[in-house]
Amino acid sequence: MSPPSAIDVDVQAVDDTTAITIPNPLTLEDVSKRREATGKLIAGVAAVANVEQFKGGKHHLHKPKARRWDHYLNVEASSRKGNSLKAAAKYLKKPGIISLGGGLPSAEYFPFDELSIKVPQIGHFSEKETRENGAVLTAGKSDLADDKSLFDITTAFNYGQGSGSAQLLRYLIEHTEIVHNPPYQDWYCNMTIGSTSALDVALRMFVQRGDVVLTEDYTFATAVETAAPMGVRMVGVGLDDEGLLPESLDDVLSNWDEAARGARKPFLLYTVPTGQNPTGATQSEQRRREVYKVAQKHDVYILEDEPYYFLQMQPYTGPDSPDVPPPKTHAEFLKSLVPSFLSLDTDGRVMRMDSFSKVVAPGARVGWITASQQIVDRFIKHIDVSTQAPSGISQLVLFKLLDEHWGHAGFLDWLVHIRMEYTQRRDVMLGACEKYLPKEVMSWKPPMAGMFHWLQIEYEKHPDHKNMSIAELEEKIFQTIVDHGALVMKGSWFYADSQAKHDTMFFRSTYAAAPFEKIEEAIKRLGDAVREEFGLKSQ
Amino acid sequence: MSPPSAIDVDVQAVDDTTAITIPNPLTLEDVSKRREATGKLIAGVAAVANVEQFKGGKHHLHKPKARRWDHYLNVEASSRKGNSLKAAAKYLKKPGIISLGGGLPSAEYFPFDELSIKVPQIGHFSEKETRENGAVLTAGKSDLADDKSLFDITTAFNYGQGSGSAQLLRYLIEHTEIVHNPPYQDWYCNMTIGSTSALDVALRMFVQRGDVVLTEDYTFATAVETAAPMGVRMVGVGLDDEGLLPESLDDVLSNWDEAARGARKPFLLYTVPTGQNPTGATQSEQRRREVYKVAQKHDVYILEDEPYYFLQMQPYTGPDSPDVPPPKTHAEFLKSLVPSFLSLDTDGRVMRMDSFSKVVAPGARVGWITASQQIVDRFIKHIDVSTQAPSGISQLVLFKLLDEHWGHAGFLDWLVHIRMEYTQRRDVMLGACEKYLPKEVMSWKPPMAGMFHWLQIEYEKHPDHKNMSIAELEEKIFQTIVDHGALVMKGSWFYADSQAKHDTMFFRSTYAAAPFEKIEEAIKRLGDAVREEFGLKSQ
Repeated sequence: MSPPSAIDVDVQAVDDTTAITIPNPLTLEDVSKRREATGKLIAGVAAVANVEQFKGGKHHLHKPKARRWDHYLNVEASSRKGNSLKAAAKYLKKPGIISLGGGLPSAEYFPFDELSIKVPQIGHFSEKETRENGAVLTAGKSDLADDKSLFDITTAFNYGQGSGSAQLLRYLIEHTEIVHNPPYQDWYCNMTIGSTSALDVALRMFVQRGDVVLTEDYTFATAVETAAPMGVRMVGVGLDDEGLLPESLDDVLSNWDEAARGARKPFLLYTVPTGQNPTGATQSEQRRREVYKVAQKHDVYILEDEPYYFLQMQPYTGPDSPDVPPPKTHAEFLKSLVPSFLSLDTDGRVMRMDSFSKVVAPGARVGWITASQQIVDRFIKHIDVSTQAPSGISQLVLFKLLDEHWGHAGFLDWLVHIRMEYTQRRDVMLGACEKYLPKEVMSWKPPMAGMFHWLQIEYEKHPDHKNMSIAELEEKIFQTIVDHGALVMKGSWFYADSQAKHDTMFFRSTYAAAPFEKIEEAIKRLGDAVREEFGLKSQ
Repeated sequence: MSPPSAIDVDVQAVDDTTAITIPNPLTLEDVSKRREATGKLIAGVAAVANVEQFKGGKHHLHKPKARRWDHYLNVEASSRKGNSLKAAAKYLKKPGIISLGGGLPSAEYFPFDELSIKVPQIGHFSEKETRENGAVLTAGKSDLADDKSLFDITTAFNYGQGSGSAQLLRYLIEHTEIVHNPPYQDWYCNMTIGSTSALDVALRMFVQRGDVVLTEDYTFATAVETAAPMGVRMVGVGLDDEGLLPESLDDVLSNWDEAARGARKPFLLYTVPTGQNPTGATQSEQRRREVYKVAQKHDVYILEDEPYYFLQMQPYTGPDSPDVPPPKTHAEFLKSLVPSFLSLDTDGRVMRMDSFSKVVAPGARVGWITASQQIVDRFIKHIDVSTQAPSGISQLVLFKLLDEHWGHAGFLDWLVHIRMEYTQRRDVMLGACEKYLPKEVMSWKPPMAGMFHWLQIEYEKHPDHKNMSIAELEEKIFQTIVDHGALVMKGSWFYADSQAKHDTMFFRSTYAAAPFEKIEEAIKRLGDAVREEFGLKSQ
């Protein structure tokens, strides 16, 4: 599959509203030009980020504005007011004013003079190379005042805005524009403390107790558990190896019976379009366009959760064929990525959740959302009085690495590195599956993205299948796998709706973490266990 | 005021249930003994923290158990279930098992080999000393496996438990026991991403739309704004310069008229007992005991928000008297602190919120709560599917500084340093107030803790007071202060209930952030502005 990339969207549009003519989509070179044109970024303690400037403002004026979502925002989100104390900030602009207003501690009392990280040089990304020849990046206490850097301990370690720091937010906005170039005008980015929190906030903005949210039949268990205590059920939509089925989505929505379902017609779709957890399925561009069309038909708002977007891998060529060489240029790499919903979102009906967890480090607890200004405004007002922005220490570390050291080009190189590493891991697992698993009762598709390999079991061939429920049989097989010394996840743990009837059986395995030889050994044990369960001859 | 310290509570109790006899309360030496007795802490990626072991387990068995709060937990909190995927973790204990279960990324793909911070040597806490002779602490990628440290990048930068890492949590539990020694058995600590988030979670555990939460008449504006969109109003309780008035609390609760108030009788009290924001008031031990008694009488649960606890200052001696020398020993320092509600909490009816924001750095976004096991269990289940634990990068930085470098003793030394610094700042401000403010119309009490100085205005003496509402007059005076080049906060921004009738006028100023000469100049401008407003002779 080689779909036209997200960056092709709008490629015909000519932007003649800015002084410097920036072609659409944004290239890496354009970012430098835009930064030069806007001048040096000066953002001190708790500075408000100038999102329009980071986006290049006029560059998006030819696009339509996002739709309004007032009819879906709940009373909690609608009733949020601005912070009264922040209203005082406008007086700080008065020349010469001395503020005894804000209760911010003085940086004098932060017991830190420097923070350093040792990180990979561009193109030398392995652990060994980094250990031996990594670059050491150092943030000082007052680098900003000393004109050594745009960000420092004094700024990053103090309180910040709910948007996240201007320094890192600018980078995220540029990155988002390079990769997704949202096709409406008033898109905004805002940092999050991770997509788990972003989903929690999004649900609290939209749902009421008793509501239903649609998602893939098998879905991320934590999402179900985030929604459940709010009184919100997930209802599953059919999926195949290209993920969510648009016909199934349309069917569920078209035939929604409020009385029978005990809930108003759903208006939220939660989906993981790329390397879905747990199925590993990746929606093709065509599939996404069809799903988006159904969302338009039923006026559904889409929560696009994309932690695995940059774990898209090289095409799988099979155990004996040569590997596909890595993308040669940044443009080729970007073109190889399946377009996101965000990149197709002419209505502004998508909140995309991005995360550094899978491509930098989960412990950073930094992610970001992209959505229309209206939605981001509600989101900020929510987090201003709850989570606030991510750790400033994490932000400073990411800024030093991504903005000052790697730049956008180096980060894309890193992402290609990760892509090739995951490709190798996946291929080790697929090779082991080919070698050790009994195809008489097990089947799978090579995952194109993400961390997960989804193994179907033909449970009807199990000798006990007439005497046991699917749940009992799944548990029995699971225990035998554990007895053989391998741990995989039961498919039933990922039911969107555990009350619904299920007639399939799956196990989820991951190639993300274990060393290669352990992956091979674990798959061998899995094969032995399944053979034993199904009374098949051992290998 | 020199109340008996929190650590005197339970001093008579003899603990004979542990092998090593640990006197009650916990001393700094006991911590080392306890750690020796329990052996080396081994906690890898996403390890579950052994809270009982960190508390010294049997050490608390002679204390009563906390009460149950089921009758106050709302449907959201009550309905929370455990994470199903975490159930799989138990199989990891099986010897030799290979896990293809959890979707954790491999540390190989974290682009960090080392993280270093330069921090103060104990006793040499100034910025200058740290810059010139600070200690450089370094965390390596696999210090844990290499036996160089208990914590490293591999562990801290990966996913973690909702409790926060075992490494830092142990330190926080010990610190809490040293300072507060909660007088019931089943107290737990859990990390938070800051007290703003902790309050948000706490409210979502207890309240229903339409509920009322009690708090000081003037209160932290963000707390009001956290509650409001949940449909929860704050209702103010009277306060004086020792904070919350127990008689007023009892009066509000005893005479609660559900019909007239349009809300069930309140069962939550949100209070900032030390250096309250905005009034700067600090409740004495006697005051706290009285408030706690009223809470028992009406079965009220207390949310104790204590960011300023360690900004308790030296007694104020006036402009011309010699300063009080700093505490000579850790024991003397701890004794000088007013006991927390937590330290008086025999029922387990307090959730205490602690924060590093005012004493280490707000940007770390790390705090912790202390409450009974039942409440902490609900809290963890909530954050497991929303905020998760604080940034692992922040946790690693704090662990290196607090546990490995300073230890408990060094941190207490740092806190004494901060105490002396804030004392000096406050004294500069009070000196300027004595010198420049018109006492004919302005009055204040010297704050004993926190960041804020609360200035009362006798608005009845203003020439326009008969023609203008308090709100209009406050705005007029505020604008004149701004015109004179000083920014302070309007008292009305801190109304617990902006609908209630108010007949006092205050402005809040802070001595936390500005340089000394700027504080003096701003207070001078404030005095000039108020004199102009009230038609007083200029100085």
